Amino acid sequence: MTPGLAAHMATADIDGGDRPVVAGKSEESPRALEEERQRGLRLRADLENFRRRAGREQEMARRDGRRSALLPLLPVLDSLERALAAGSTDPDFYEGVAATHRLFISALREAGAEPVESVGQPFDPRIHEAVATTAAPGGEQGMVVREIRRGWRLGDELLRPAQVVVASPREAAHRWR
Amino acid sequence: MTPGLAAHMATADIDGGDRPVVAGKSEESPRALEEERQRGLRLRADLENFRRRAGREQEMARRDGRRSALLPLLPVLDSLERALAAGSTDPDFYEGVAATHRLFISALREAGAEPVESVGQPFDPRIHEAVATTAAPGGEQGMVVREIRRGWRLGDELLRPAQVVVASPREAAHRWR
Repeated sequence: MTPGLAAHMATADIDGGDRPVVAGKSEESPRALEEERQRGLRLRADLENFRRRAGREQEMARRDGRRSALLPLLPVLDSLERALAAGSTDPDFYEGVAATHRLFISALREAGAEPVESVGQPFDPRIHEAVATTAAPGGEQGMVVREIRRGWRLGDELLRPAQVVVASPREAAHRWR
Repeated sequence: MTPGLAAHMATADIDGGDRPVVAGKSEESPRALEEERQRGLRLRADLENFRRRAGREQEMARRDGRRSALLPLLPVLDSLERALAAGSTDPDFYEGVAATHRLFISALREAGAEPVESVGQPFDPRIHEAVATTAAPGGEQGMVVREIRRGWRLGDELLRPAQVVVASPREAAHRWR
């Protein structure tokens, strides 16, 4: 139960259900009946809202589970990529590890994650984190020219931003720091 | 919304809320009032059940998200372990990959997964899958003597069983096939 749902439920709880029955005092009944009906309408509205909300929160919980499983695994991929980038004098072993790396990328996709596009894209602070700038010819200004660490999305959410180098005229370099 | 919740909700929907108001016909009111109260009680019970259920189903959705993110990544670890098992003539590169492997195991633990214990344990069909048997001295019968593929748990659920070799007298070998 999330705090949001608990707060919502309070509305229904306040209505209570323990008032004494006044059947027999018929002169009071029309008003009591109307009150009881209003209470019923509120309960039905609560139930309907709650139901919609529960569906949404279940979807969020599923994604939250995915995210918390995937996040610790991204540095493992980084580590594998650093090892591969260093190269090896043993081509057979290297190829075995390179195959594992390709499998890793496709497993992350299968788990719902997608790499963030960076090199050649305009810098976008929502998905890119500028860790350095570099002076560049006019046409490249504001573009991502190098990726330091790959970023990952999960559906329309960001798992982590791509760390990138951005092309920028020297006088605007401070903008990215 | 799961089918379970949708089925449950039907109870509340059937009650409806559109009956004409009969205020003024006071001789009918005590019965109408009592009916309205009973309907209110059922609605409150529905709401309470639904709320309990939604909390549980949210927890299940979170775990389901975790499971569906972790499952495709387990074969990546297998692949890395096969590469390491083959060995390398390049000790520096090998050590880089071995470090990545240690990081992988600890990331899986951080994501909530735990290895299934196998070698030296009694064979347990709930968490072990026997892929071969081997003749063994009496004391070892029914014990797991070798692990072919590591198994993983997620909390009290099994992600995948460990594939193992079980010690067994030759005449009982068919039991494990």
